[in-house]
Order: sequence, then C-alpha cells, then structure tokens
Amino acid sequence: MKKVVVIRHGQSVWNLENRFTGWTDVPLSEQGIQEAHLAGQKIKEAHLQFDEVYTSVLQRAIRTAHIVMEEIGQLWVPEYKSWRLNERHYGALQGLNKQDTADKYGEEQVTLWRRSYDVLPPLLEPGDERSASLDPKYQHLDPHAIPRGESLQTTLVRTLPFWQDHIAPKLLNNETILIVAHGNSLRSIAMHLEGLTEEQILELEIPTGQPLVYELNDDLSFHSKYYLS
Amino acid sequence: MKKVVVIRHGQSVWNLENRFTGWTDVPLSEQGIQEAHLAGQKIKEAHLQFDEVYTSVLQRAIRTAHIVMEEIGQLWVPEYKSWRLNERHYGALQGLNKQDTADKYGEEQVTLWRRSYDVLPPLLEPGDERSASLDPKYQHLDPHAIPRGESLQTTLVRTLPFWQDHIAPKLLNNETILIVAHGNSLRSIAMHLEGLTEEQILELEIPTGQPLVYELNDDLSFHSKYYLS
Repeated sequence: MKKVVVIRHGQSVWNLENRFTGWTDVPLSEQGIQEAHLAGQKIKEAHLQFDEVYTSVLQRAIRTAHIVMEEIGQLWVPEYKSWRLNERHYGALQGLNKQDTADKYGEEQVTLWRRSYDVLPPLLEPGDERSASLDPKYQHLDPHAIPRGESLQTTLVRTLPFWQDHIAPKLLNNETILIVAHGNSLRSIAMHLEGLTEEQILELEIPTGQPLVYELNDDLSFHSKYYLS
Repeated sequence: MKKVVVIRHGQSVWNLENRFTGWTDVPLSEQGIQEAHLAGQKIKEAHLQFDEVYTSVLQRAIRTAHIVMEEIGQLWVPEYKSWRLNERHYGALQGLNKQDTADKYGEEQVTLWRRSYDVLPPLLEPGDERSASLDPKYQHLDPHAIPRGESLQTTLVRTLPFWQDHIAPKLLNNETILIVAHGNSLRSIAMHLEGLTEEQILELEIPTGQPLVYELNDDLSFHSKYYLS
C-alpha cells in the first residue's frame, strides 16, 4: 500500500487575532508549536520512516515540518518547499479582521468567500503592498503564476500539478511521503485523492496538527484514510 | 564578488561530555542552540539574503541551519543536505572519552590522531554497532562510500566533489550560499578555497557559531575572508 501522511500546521499568531491570513507569512503561536510537537510524537509512536518531506514556502508550515522531523529523529530526510503547497491566497481580505469584514460586507458575503468552492475573494490590486510579487521568495516565479486571490477551485489548479509531478512519482516508487501544509491546499489535495465532489469537499475539514494517513492502491486510487492518535 | 558564508555548528551534548563525536548524530546542547541564534542575529545585521543553504545530514548542523534561517526570516530558502558535508569520521574512537583515550594510548598518539593531516584513526571493524552502514540515513549510499574512519585528508577527498558539483556552480551563477557544517568538513573546504598547505591547514581553527564570509573572485579564486561580528 502506498502511504502519504498530511499534516495541517497548528495555530498561527493571526489565527489568534482572527485575521484572514492566506499567503501572509506569519509565525506559529506558542500553541501552534505545541501542536507540532504533539503531531511528531504521534508519528513517532506509529514508527513511520519518511523518504521525503514536502512543505509550502510559508514559515508556519516549514516550522511545523522541522519540529515534527526533529521529534521523530529524521531531520536528515530531504525536504522540498514549494509555493504550490501554500495556503489559498485570500486576496484583498488578507490582513483584515474576520469580524470587521463580516460587519462591513455582511455575514452572508463572508460565508460565501470562505465556504464556497469557486467564488474568488476580492482580488489584490496591482501594486498593493501585500502583493506576493514584492516578496523575495517569489522572485524566481513566472509573474503570471502569482495569484492576487484564489478560490478553493483555483487553489486545486495549482496544487495538483505539484502532486502529479513531484509527489505521485515518489509514491509510485514506494516511497513514504510527508506533506506539511495548510487547510485549503490540503483540502484540494484531499479532493483529488478521495475523488470528492464540489459539494463533498465543502464538508471536509482537516483539523490542525493531526497527522492524517492516506493509503493508496498501486494505481494511486484511494484505499483508506485514518488519523494517528 | 562571489560570496559564501560558512558556519560551524555550536556545542553538542558530546562536546560537553568530552567525547569523540565524528558521525555520531548527537543533538546540540542548550549552549549550542544559543550559539545558533547569535549566528543568525549576526547574519541578520549584515542583511545577507541567501539563495541556497547546505548542511550535512547530522542533526547538530541541520538544527543550527534551521535556527539561523528562522532568525533571518529565510526559512523558505531551498535547503540541501549531504553526507559529504558530515564531520570527519572518527572511526573506532567515536563515543570514547578523550581523556580516557589519552590515558590509554598516550597524549602523543591522541594528538597525532587529532591534529595530523593524513593519519587515520583506528578504523571501525565491519559489523561494529557504530557503523554508519546500519543507519537509515546512509541506506541509499554506495556501501563503498561509507567510511570506517577518516583523516583530514580523506575528509577533503569526499567534501571537494560536493563543493565542485553543487556549490561552485551556484557561486558561478552569482548565488549567495550558506554552508552549515562541522569543524573538519569546513576546514577541508577552507584548505581548498584558501589554497593552504598541509602545514597551514593544521593552524586553522574555525570557531563555533561565528559566521565566516568568503569572498571569491569570478574564477572562484580566494579574494578575502572575514567573520561577522
């Protein structure tokens, strides 16, 4: 059975402040660090040995991966970071307080932005100081690839090529893979792996810091999943 | 000017216990962790932006690299780990207390093992439980490449190909590189970079946790070096 473990990073300092985060590169909170240690301990008890670990280029996922790999004594395992595993880009909502935004635009509109499959958030204007194109970590990227706001659907469109080109070949080669990423980048991968519909994916929530094991058949079709506890 | 920064990891728990370490994968001590944070702060003050970071597969170097990269806000930078940057393998001395070893073999013999250029330590016997060939991190390596004990000279023989194949091409491409490694793997690289003789390299000591900047000419010949303070 092919095996890939996914972990959603723990609490960040902006979760605490109830702000839309997206691609904003905020650190883990103290609780988030603790969640990462606990995730590592669960993997240690399951005696999993990884061949590669994949993360986004956002520090809350990278730090979580480092804490997990240290906890399980596997810091030496090759680690690859890609913007394609980043959280969904929240456009012009990034940085705003969620309650303030609901007060301004109405609960219904905010729910639509947060919980629909293909509704885009308001896009960042070109030149906005929050634009990822100003960030050194995206300087080597085709400027056309840098989003100004994403739905879950457009997030899937950019995570799936990374899965297909980098992770799937390793699984076909019987390697055991760890992915440490974000609520929506992981949901988009889960949608693909489990073959979920647009309605079904909206029901799926991946809890933070809980290692989720996917077991796949030889052709990488879905076999089963379970959380390590 | 081409620029490569090298850092020797800080104190490990076996430095504290005065034991020969080599390839034994011991963690940093609390002091070693503090040294890594200080090294990061010095790099931050120098406003260096790295394109890649290279470490050994030993956790004391990897942890140092992670702490530095977090301290300078560059965790997203690609990181590559190779056994070729490991500390010199100390053969059958690994794990022994340095004072006990001097009492048993004499100070003169221990000085020869520690401070000569091409004298090998007593080699590990095949099947010794300390053998690196039993360690999962070396399972994908040609068994003939795994040392049973190294001199500074044989350490250079295996670090130099990594420098030539992986690091030098990046410098020629004007990338700024960070290497976090070990006393002797860094001395072997320094010998090559500075064109030192066998006598001169024995005089060179690289202090722990002090970022050392090498500036190289366009053909990668030595231009200058300085410590960040």
